[in-house]
Amino acid sequence: MNQERIGKVLKKTEADALLLCDPSAIFYLTGKTFSPGERFLGLLLNKEDRPKLFLNALFPYEPDEGLDVIVYSDTDVYTELLRPHLNPDWVLGVDKDLPACFLLPILKQKLVRDCVDGSLPVDQTRAIKDEEELRRMRRSSQINDEAMGIFKTLIKEGVTEKEVASQIPEIYKSLGAVSNSFEPIVAFGRNAADPHHMPDDTLLKEGDAVLFDVGCIYEDYCSDMTRTFFYKKGPTPEQRKIYELVKKANEDAEASIKAGVRLCDIDSVARNVIEKGGYGPYFTHRLGHFIGTQVHEYGDVSQSFTVPAEAGNTFSIEPGIYYPEILGCRIEDLVIVTEDGCEVLNHYPHDIEIIG
Amino acid sequence: MNQERIGKVLKKTEADALLLCDPSAIFYLTGKTFSPGERFLGLLLNKEDRPKLFLNALFPYEPDEGLDVIVYSDTDVYTELLRPHLNPDWVLGVDKDLPACFLLPILKQKLVRDCVDGSLPVDQTRAIKDEEELRRMRRSSQINDEAMGIFKTLIKEGVTEKEVASQIPEIYKSLGAVSNSFEPIVAFGRNAADPHHMPDDTLLKEGDAVLFDVGCIYEDYCSDMTRTFFYKKGPTPEQRKIYELVKKANEDAEASIKAGVRLCDIDSVARNVIEKGGYGPYFTHRLGHFIGTQVHEYGDVSQSFTVPAEAGNTFSIEPGIYYPEILGCRIEDLVIVTEDGCEVLNHYPHDIEIIG
Repeated sequence: MNQERIGKVLKKTEADALLLCDPSAIFYLTGKTFSPGERFLGLLLNKEDRPKLFLNALFPYEPDEGLDVIVYSDTDVYTELLRPHLNPDWVLGVDKDLPACFLLPILKQKLVRDCVDGSLPVDQTRAIKDEEELRRMRRSSQINDEAMGIFKTLIKEGVTEKEVASQIPEIYKSLGAVSNSFEPIVAFGRNAADPHHMPDDTLLKEGDAVLFDVGCIYEDYCSDMTRTFFYKKGPTPEQRKIYELVKKANEDAEASIKAGVRLCDIDSVARNVIEKGGYGPYFTHRLGHFIGTQVHEYGDVSQSFTVPAEAGNTFSIEPGIYYPEILGCRIEDLVIVTEDGCEVLNHYPHDIEIIG
Repeated sequence: MNQERIGKVLKKTEADALLLCDPSAIFYLTGKTFSPGERFLGLLLNKEDRPKLFLNALFPYEPDEGLDVIVYSDTDVYTELLRPHLNPDWVLGVDKDLPACFLLPILKQKLVRDCVDGSLPVDQTRAIKDEEELRRMRRSSQINDEAMGIFKTLIKEGVTEKEVASQIPEIYKSLGAVSNSFEPIVAFGRNAADPHHMPDDTLLKEGDAVLFDVGCIYEDYCSDMTRTFFYKKGPTPEQRKIYELVKKANEDAEASIKAGVRLCDIDSVARNVIEKGGYGPYFTHRLGHFIGTQVHEYGDVSQSFTVPAEAGNTFSIEPGIYYPEILGCRIEDLVIVTEDGCEVLNHYPHDIEIIG
């Protein structure tokens, strides 16, 4: 149990109680990991009482002094399980991920007066990493930097994207990571111009762009980095122009970060660079996303997030230009926001690099 | 688009329209695969109008004559996206998995009169596989049978569970599967008595039970099978008693299956065998789960499912006894329900087998 984090969350909520179900939020607050599948898992927090965890009997757990565990079986009735612990006068903040099959019965049977989305206090607390979390974030990205140096050596005549991607998990493990943090993206040539491309049987050919969007998990914390290489042949003049724009967008955005600067304004810095360069319509996504124990945590570096960055925020800066006929290119780092700037966690160079 | 399946679903629902979000349900009805992450993905079905898909601009799709696609961007407002396509007089059936952050705004802004859990018509339709689905289910389990014959050869002096488990994905691929259908469970000795054990660094030792709970994906359809072996030394008399009880529970349950028999009664057959044998408290889970494009689909073979089995249902039969001091043992097959019995998809023998 992390009483300090629970205290911070409860201080931020206006609801009478919170019912969380996201295993990553529950891990953040209790230190316990569960993979409940389709079965109900709930952590009930309120200011007046001890935290309560609803857990199916199938899942083992280590008892914890600070937590009451209510174990149920597959034959128990869900609403009867919750009823004694809720209050018809309450406004209940529910996890933003609480599935309809668990939310609708609470509403229909009026187990509480009303339900509201209650995740924001948790998300806002999670968004500011403490020192121990930052240590892990740094190490995770350090491993990712080292790994990138190895991944590029896999790029050889005749390989396919899938063949390269399939070697990535073991390389991470050999460097001390637990696993990759998401399915690695390896994209050759035109495929690099699809931001969500999944590795397929595309064969590498001379002159291809080679994009790696990869990350690992170290002590529960994720890294995430993208680099775009050129295979055997340097970029054409237009490719160079695109690459340098993306690089400038990345670096100008990173230079603009400090506590108090709005996330949307960081996004604008990168977006303006690319728009002024004439490629605005080809930068089709947000500039970045928050990250921690999950690759995508609450918080975007985008036009829709108008809140200021805070010291301890960790997010990606990943501008890209996706121009299928010419080049698909993305350069992504993770950063930690500080009071007077930011700490860039990735040190693998941004410069044009010809490999193979 | 699969108009026939959509027709069946709409015929079964009493809601005015259905808003589905589960990617596997959307795949079942449209043939299209999406991995939207935290972004909204919705398939809106109603009797009066063409199906509509709400899709973030980030995700590419192949246009389809039978489907209107409403593409939105990260800066669009969710409720304004939905409003023109909903009706304040409707009762909207929502996906059982629709997250609270997408359900609550529909309710608060009264985009419809009421929301109910609308997944049952989809789940009931999916639960009855057609011939093409059954062909894939058979082949997926055939590969799983072959694979089990290979997995047991990995059991050698000095290996750990993790080392064995890490080789499983490649073996499936070599046999023509796309991947494993879930993280393989490999459990040695006492670990076999934890039904949800994940492979760790436990070293194999003589006399250990060796449990494999494994499955693969073939043309989108999953297999799932468990066998429990003995390493180098045959079972003790009590281990043999437990093993034979589990085997009898499996085989008696399978013999009891045919269309019209209630799922809870199939569960009872296995449960009675184990209870009569004196190990009732050590069989701690349902007898089986439905399976198809997902390893766990809607439908259980358990005391709480009192509906009759129907021809075309595919589910697991997986009794187990988990007695940490003596033996953890599970024997699991997949079956297809037929009018006069069932087709057991796994042919790997049930008999006690000493390996290594």
